[in-house]
Amino acid sequence: MPIEDLRATIRAGEYTSHTAGLGAGLLQANLAIMPERHALDFMRFCQRNPKPCPLTGVSDTGNPMMVTLGRDIDIRRDVPAYNIYRDGLLSESKTDITALWQDDFVVFALGCSFTFENALEQAGISLWHIQNNTTVPMYRTNIETTPAGPFCGPMVVSMRMIDPARLEEVQNFCRRYPLAHGAPVHWGDPAQIGIANIGAPDWGDPVPDEPGKIPVFWACGVTPQAAVARAKLPICITHKPGHMLITDIAEDAEVPVFRP
Amino acid sequence: MPIEDLRATIRAGEYTSHTAGLGAGLLQANLAIMPERHALDFMRFCQRNPKPCPLTGVSDTGNPMMVTLGRDIDIRRDVPAYNIYRDGLLSESKTDITALWQDDFVVFALGCSFTFENALEQAGISLWHIQNNTTVPMYRTNIETTPAGPFCGPMVVSMRMIDPARLEEVQNFCRRYPLAHGAPVHWGDPAQIGIANIGAPDWGDPVPDEPGKIPVFWACGVTPQAAVARAKLPICITHKPGHMLITDIAEDAEVPVFRP
Repeated sequence: MPIEDLRATIRAGEYTSHTAGLGAGLLQANLAIMPERHALDFMRFCQRNPKPCPLTGVSDTGNPMMVTLGRDIDIRRDVPAYNIYRDGLLSESKTDITALWQDDFVVFALGCSFTFENALEQAGISLWHIQNNTTVPMYRTNIETTPAGPFCGPMVVSMRMIDPARLEEVQNFCRRYPLAHGAPVHWGDPAQIGIANIGAPDWGDPVPDEPGKIPVFWACGVTPQAAVARAKLPICITHKPGHMLITDIAEDAEVPVFRP
Repeated sequence: MPIEDLRATIRAGEYTSHTAGLGAGLLQANLAIMPERHALDFMRFCQRNPKPCPLTGVSDTGNPMMVTLGRDIDIRRDVPAYNIYRDGLLSESKTDITALWQDDFVVFALGCSFTFENALEQAGISLWHIQNNTTVPMYRTNIETTPAGPFCGPMVVSMRMIDPARLEEVQNFCRRYPLAHGAPVHWGDPAQIGIANIGAPDWGDPVPDEPGKIPVFWACGVTPQAAVARAKLPICITHKPGHMLITDIAEDAEVPVFRP
């Protein structure tokens, strides 16, 4: 389906499921929407933690149109599902946030792992959770983020099992995607980054041990969501996990800025 | 000279010249210091124009210590020379801005071309202005930046003559340095980007025609300086051109965040 039709379908509320595999070749993005008074600190948090928080777009205050990410993206309606957090707690999920929009809202779009996962699969590096249609396992670590204002806390990572013979290739490959979490942050012993039980992820589904492969860990977009929750903002709206914004930007663009 | 000694010398006001060739292997940065009320828009301007404005560090409001860029960097004293702009006009140059410091100042550090120039020279791609110790030629173009708040205006580019047989190599190489302006934005005919006379740069020194080479243009850190001047901020402090901040970050770091 062309992106215009896909977006129209989502905008009409007729598609409310996850976006994995949709909009082939287009950059997908995580979301965090918050009042302007927190925006400078959140932007600093992203600048200081670019691997978990790769900033791909920031709206003008109060403007729901993401002009740098596409021709006609209305952030109030063009994401299949949203989570609304109040004082750091999930209060509700919605498929349209027009009624909640505030004149002081700033929208942050952050790169996500779909980009490098697609690229790895195309390079012949098969990922178990994709082949088996489960959610990648994610873990809280003992790696502290670099704080900014009220935003802080541990880095969250996602894990994929990789053949150690291809580890260097994977590292070099992923480093070419700084807007999609970049190179892995750790590989091998999970205990070294504070993960006690690899079979019990904090988010997502466990994956089986694959003989001859080792666990490799990437900075994960749940990190900023956890930081925002911990900061207990009166209101913050995110995408529902897996239900991303699909932009008009090519997945392998050097710069995530839409030029009409 | 070890970086600690070099920084102490600059801090003492005993070195006030340009920093080209100093602090081998360390990331150098352009500066823009402004009151917090303009900071969110300026950060948006950098996010939307990452090739001319690659953000490498942002201070906490009112804190002159650049904790994410090094062990002990006091931005009021650790740059050899500063330019002070008032209402968009250069008002004075100083070698220490302690007396001008304001509690609402936010410091922005931006990547600079020294990083990729060093890398190109090491890869055997010789650059005339370095070999001849002149300042790289810079030009205003007809490429518009993506605006944010009061910040807008044309992209400024720097130019280096390159053997066309090595152009693709140079492009791939520079793309690996997104924090140092990334891949070139144009090559060949200067008129296509609005440059009427390549022999008359708007800043820096002209370079001679080199037989068999073509002009190649990179986004330039003068772009944000011109945007800030055009926005006529009541006060904005920059480094004096060529007189950069030398950080403790490795030039080829994936992430410009200092970990003690």
